[in-house]
Amino acid sequence: MASCGAFLKPNHSLLPCHKTSSPKHDSIKQFCVRASASSTDDGERTIIRKEKDEWKIKYSSKKPVTPLLDTINYPAHMKNLSTQDLEQLAAELRADIVHTVSNSGGHLSSSLGVVELTVALHHVFNTPEDKIIWDVGHQAYAHKILTGRRSRMPTIRKTLGLAGFPKRDESVHDAFGTGHSSTSISAGLGMAVARDILGKNNSVISVIGDGAMTAGQAYEALNNAGFLDCNMIVILNDNKQVSLPTATVDGPATPVGALSSTLAKIQASTEFRKLREAAKTITKQIGGQTHQVAAKVDEYARGMISASGSTLFEELGLYYIGPVDGHDIEGLVTILEKVKAMPVPGPILIHIVTEKGKGYPPAEAAADKMHGVVKFEPATGRQFKPKSSTLSYTQYFAESLIKEAEIDNKIVGIHAAMGGGTGLNYFQKRFPDRCFDVGIAEQHAITFAAGLAAEGLKPFCAIYSSFLQRGYDQVVHDVDLQKLPVRFAIDRAGLVGADGPTHCGAFDITFMASLPNMVVMAPSDEAELMHMVATAAAIDDRPSCFRFPRGNGIGATLPLNNKGTPLEIGKGKILTEGSRVAILGYGSAVQQCLHAAQILEEHDISVTVADARFCKPLDIDLIKLLAKEHEFVITVEEGSIGGFGSHVSQFLSIAGLLDGPLKWRAMTLPDRYIEHGSPQDQMDEAGLTSKHIVATVLSLLERPKEALLFK
Amino acid sequence: MASCGAFLKPNHSLLPCHKTSSPKHDSIKQFCVRASASSTDDGERTIIRKEKDEWKIKYSSKKPVTPLLDTINYPAHMKNLSTQDLEQLAAELRADIVHTVSNSGGHLSSSLGVVELTVALHHVFNTPEDKIIWDVGHQAYAHKILTGRRSRMPTIRKTLGLAGFPKRDESVHDAFGTGHSSTSISAGLGMAVARDILGKNNSVISVIGDGAMTAGQAYEALNNAGFLDCNMIVILNDNKQVSLPTATVDGPATPVGALSSTLAKIQASTEFRKLREAAKTITKQIGGQTHQVAAKVDEYARGMISASGSTLFEELGLYYIGPVDGHDIEGLVTILEKVKAMPVPGPILIHIVTEKGKGYPPAEAAADKMHGVVKFEPATGRQFKPKSSTLSYTQYFAESLIKEAEIDNKIVGIHAAMGGGTGLNYFQKRFPDRCFDVGIAEQHAITFAAGLAAEGLKPFCAIYSSFLQRGYDQVVHDVDLQKLPVRFAIDRAGLVGADGPTHCGAFDITFMASLPNMVVMAPSDEAELMHMVATAAAIDDRPSCFRFPRGNGIGATLPLNNKGTPLEIGKGKILTEGSRVAILGYGSAVQQCLHAAQILEEHDISVTVADARFCKPLDIDLIKLLAKEHEFVITVEEGSIGGFGSHVSQFLSIAGLLDGPLKWRAMTLPDRYIEHGSPQDQMDEAGLTSKHIVATVLSLLERPKEALLFK
Repeated sequence: MASCGAFLKPNHSLLPCHKTSSPKHDSIKQFCVRASASSTDDGERTIIRKEKDEWKIKYSSKKPVTPLLDTINYPAHMKNLSTQDLEQLAAELRADIVHTVSNSGGHLSSSLGVVELTVALHHVFNTPEDKIIWDVGHQAYAHKILTGRRSRMPTIRKTLGLAGFPKRDESVHDAFGTGHSSTSISAGLGMAVARDILGKNNSVISVIGDGAMTAGQAYEALNNAGFLDCNMIVILNDNKQVSLPTATVDGPATPVGALSSTLAKIQASTEFRKLREAAKTITKQIGGQTHQVAAKVDEYARGMISASGSTLFEELGLYYIGPVDGHDIEGLVTILEKVKAMPVPGPILIHIVTEKGKGYPPAEAAADKMHGVVKFEPATGRQFKPKSSTLSYTQYFAESLIKEAEIDNKIVGIHAAMGGGTGLNYFQKRFPDRCFDVGIAEQHAITFAAGLAAEGLKPFCAIYSSFLQRGYDQVVHDVDLQKLPVRFAIDRAGLVGADGPTHCGAFDITFMASLPNMVVMAPSDEAELMHMVATAAAIDDRPSCFRFPRGNGIGATLPLNNKGTPLEIGKGKILTEGSRVAILGYGSAVQQCLHAAQILEEHDISVTVADARFCKPLDIDLIKLLAKEHEFVITVEEGSIGGFGSHVSQFLSIAGLLDGPLKWRAMTLPDRYIEHGSPQDQMDEAGLTSKHIVATVLSLLERPKEALLFK
Repeated sequence: MASCGAFLKPNHSLLPCHKTSSPKHDSIKQFCVRASASSTDDGERTIIRKEKDEWKIKYSSKKPVTPLLDTINYPAHMKNLSTQDLEQLAAELRADIVHTVSNSGGHLSSSLGVVELTVALHHVFNTPEDKIIWDVGHQAYAHKILTGRRSRMPTIRKTLGLAGFPKRDESVHDAFGTGHSSTSISAGLGMAVARDILGKNNSVISVIGDGAMTAGQAYEALNNAGFLDCNMIVILNDNKQVSLPTATVDGPATPVGALSSTLAKIQASTEFRKLREAAKTITKQIGGQTHQVAAKVDEYARGMISASGSTLFEELGLYYIGPVDGHDIEGLVTILEKVKAMPVPGPILIHIVTEKGKGYPPAEAAADKMHGVVKFEPATGRQFKPKSSTLSYTQYFAESLIKEAEIDNKIVGIHAAMGGGTGLNYFQKRFPDRCFDVGIAEQHAITFAAGLAAEGLKPFCAIYSSFLQRGYDQVVHDVDLQKLPVRFAIDRAGLVGADGPTHCGAFDITFMASLPNMVVMAPSDEAELMHMVATAAAIDDRPSCFRFPRGNGIGATLPLNNKGTPLEIGKGKILTEGSRVAILGYGSAVQQCLHAAQILEEHDISVTVADARFCKPLDIDLIKLLAKEHEFVITVEEGSIGGFGSHVSQFLSIAGLLDGPLKWRAMTLPDRYIEHGSPQDQMDEAGLTSKHIVATVLSLLERPKEALLFK
């Protein structure tokens, strides 16, 4: 049960249609299809077969033959499967996931790592009555396939398709929507308490990774679970991935945080495991009375051999079981059934050890474990990355930050387990002693940066827009109110595509620009981004931030040596001069404004386009000029209401500039987009493309909207 | 060193001017003043004297005689004091704090609890080079007195006076500003890392309570500190106050969270302590090499007797010392000096046990420990509470929530260690099984509530406006995007008075109303509050929130039996009808609008006043009506830019209503107020009083601002 083998080792024969030891299984029709799994022998197809007690998969571009999986539409169909059936099912699921994701792109290796766990959970528990909450949720592909959504898997992360994460309104089997990490224990505890209040008796299972366990919210929830002593199961999926290995420079990131060494210690001690197994022979018989005794024996065993890591959870009040091989279906099923059968066990933590990308050699071997992928070739794992003549904004940010840091040794970088995603891995490589990965811990990251700034360093805190929400109080309380010069590099601001609403950077302009001391900037292209990095480096008497989008640069001419020049604070610039209509863009929306101007020009409408550069402080001279010399001012931003447009309108109003014949319109992300934000044609759905801007202008000018434009 | 005596027990004689065993002390002039402390014998005065090895204070309204304290202006003046001098200093400090706070009001018992710790810290360490970070900061009065601010203590929490919390721009001895809890370890770690990068060698000490230790950020920071293995000292000030006992119903709240039982277990085990002391004889000699050995002995000792609580911190990578009597100056000084002298110890956690309110019998005896007080009589602790004919908004909220819960058993309450502050203590008393105090853990509180809502309960999550910032991502990600019907009761919204900028509820309208699914309300008086509680109870298909101010109701007529009636969603109401000028108030600002209308009426200017009630969804019919029938629309709210006014203006613009002769003005909290927000005359400084509204109207009407109005 607790062995950590590198392979799947079903301990039964190779014979197809082998009868299980349990007679009730014989009558289940679906088992007869097991034969076809290994009897198909087409060299071109993906082949799934058992060799020497292990399921082996030979991957190809062809759809795998999955006879057993084909019979499973819902968890109810897998209740009577034998262990060997479940193992076959896991193998077929793994092949199916690789096949699907090779065609659609998406999150790959997290789901491959929990195939056995997913099978075991759905075999033992009964969703939707029982609740399974997948933390973060990018590991839920197997869960989606087993809960009625297999046929729609090719649509994953596409417009009107399946979401990339669990989503309550997509399936009753998705107990709780996720996307951001470390929420599952809190949500599960709420569901467990609700169950008790409502007099139900279902199980609640939160599945959380060791990375997500570094976030404060997980600790808050564990502490509360221990106190409430409510029945629930937390499965700690320990795959040694405290930092997400997204696009790493030099292979997987070293796990950060002291917790990871504690977990490693537990895993490493075979003596410890043996002693625990002895203790667990008692534990397995657990009734209410023996629980305490078993726990004591356990504790004693631990104390004697000093592998005390598990007490971290026990001191928070959870009964600890583990470490368990997360790829051993038989062991998982045994433990889950025992735990399910316990009368009132209180909160239980089952520590399982898995391998990310398990069973797909290209993922196992890849530096980033093929965490998030585009379409790829199944046999080799080679991804079909679209060629681009420009790099991502993230890379331009990293490059220019390195340039600043080369001439200013006070510059340091901080990120929250996102070295790859934020580009700070490049910075880390260049300045290993000046870069800090604090784990999935945005709150700490920000106050830690404030502490660095208080002592005279120049911290750049790189956090995605939607994750910055996690540390908002720290931005307000520790940085802004103290006027400490922390620089926030806000990546993935605005529309983010396939990751959907949970990752949409809709709110940062609104919640940052309302703060009294913050300098709030957004570059219109990658060259401007480099200048804003230089500007932020130069601003040392107050906090500053700059937001930039996901995706690649537009091909702007970069500054010499990629070293930006500080901008004048609070000064925008006019890009094209026209008459009557002024379009004032903020951030990446400026490109849409310029494009709209081109279209309008073709229709003999000449508009002024300006790049605001700053939301705070506003360039009031520029705004006055635009207001006075135009009849119409349109503001455009990839953000919610309350942001740039609101700051402009409030200024216009106070300056009396809205009192005259001026007409002002604000184009912001509409609620419906923020809520449902679909991955494709996103700009179009969000109503922020150049054609929407053109339509707004034509409407203000009372011109017909030429059919031409919108064909 | 580790005894937990209830009294201060200096072990030297009663003689005044007793010579210390250290000859160097004799030459220090200030010691001669020690005599006067016990030689003054005025029955009316506060008397500080030693009786049977204990310092006793007889409290009166008169200023205490504090001869030793009078010689201490800065920490430099207390470096050569003997242990008995430090004990006398602590007694004088305690008397001085009681005297000062009895006249000014403020936070009392937290500071009394750390008098000895503060004295020991400033004796051993050298601020401002060494950094002391006081978590939350309401315990820093002794620190302020010892760092050059004694003469200004009577101004504490008053306009232009000292802040109630540490503040960087108030003193170089305030290393980091606080107010919200659980930031100190993050900030301290940042300062420690900065020190190492800059090649300095100062000490960094974070002082954090056991309550603050329940917040996720503290765990994130401990985990990161253990990983970075950087020199810093965390002092866990354990006074068994996991929940703040502010205005409790039935005495101190029971500590919540499993952590508290772990701490209690450590404290309770005398055997454990003895064994630890044995281990510490090794620990005290710590050099680099013996550190590991000592730790192992320690761990062994723990394992044998199963008092394993301390390993929670050690597993996070901190070297644990404790529990230590936090009122034993000699013990504290010894330990701090040892720790300071260690060459490279890594992060150390010193667990001290203190009593909140220590040494002031009325505070020790009080249910709330006299945590925050108004002026009081020192001899008895009797507070001079201002009489009011109305109750606080908090109480009206609690009362009406109880009424809703009486008829709907799905209603549950959640708060984050603020049962007293949020009024949920009343709810807890009535429905003990339906109220959840999750500790200082706003993130968890909100996702926990989302879990409850997902299963069909109706959670009311009561959190102060500025503390809601701590859980913003959870509001967005777990509640709003999933459209789960969690109800947020946002107390202390807008201006909060003496607690200052860190507690000002400036941003909630802005950050809540930008969310796509949230119903955003604010009552204009206590009757409206009760109706909004009923409205939120009735809204079960999406999340909702209502914000209400600190302080007492205005005396509105309450609904029958305090049971509100659900309002029509998104409908405001016109309160007075006038012409030309419409004033549209949101929340408590409506009262200022009405008052402004009265003043204007006296000047024959009749204005329309409307109560918006909802910021989202906006009452667009009402706004259209106001826009069409008036020349001027003024919006007023106690909140930052980006909130109600922005929603109104964006609607006006889109509807083309700003295109005509209409003039719109938004009155929001200005940056300068949010940043510096002074406690008194706050409405005036914030620019949101009726007179400011009147001035705005007169300005729009181009009328002279009558001198009369502003005399």
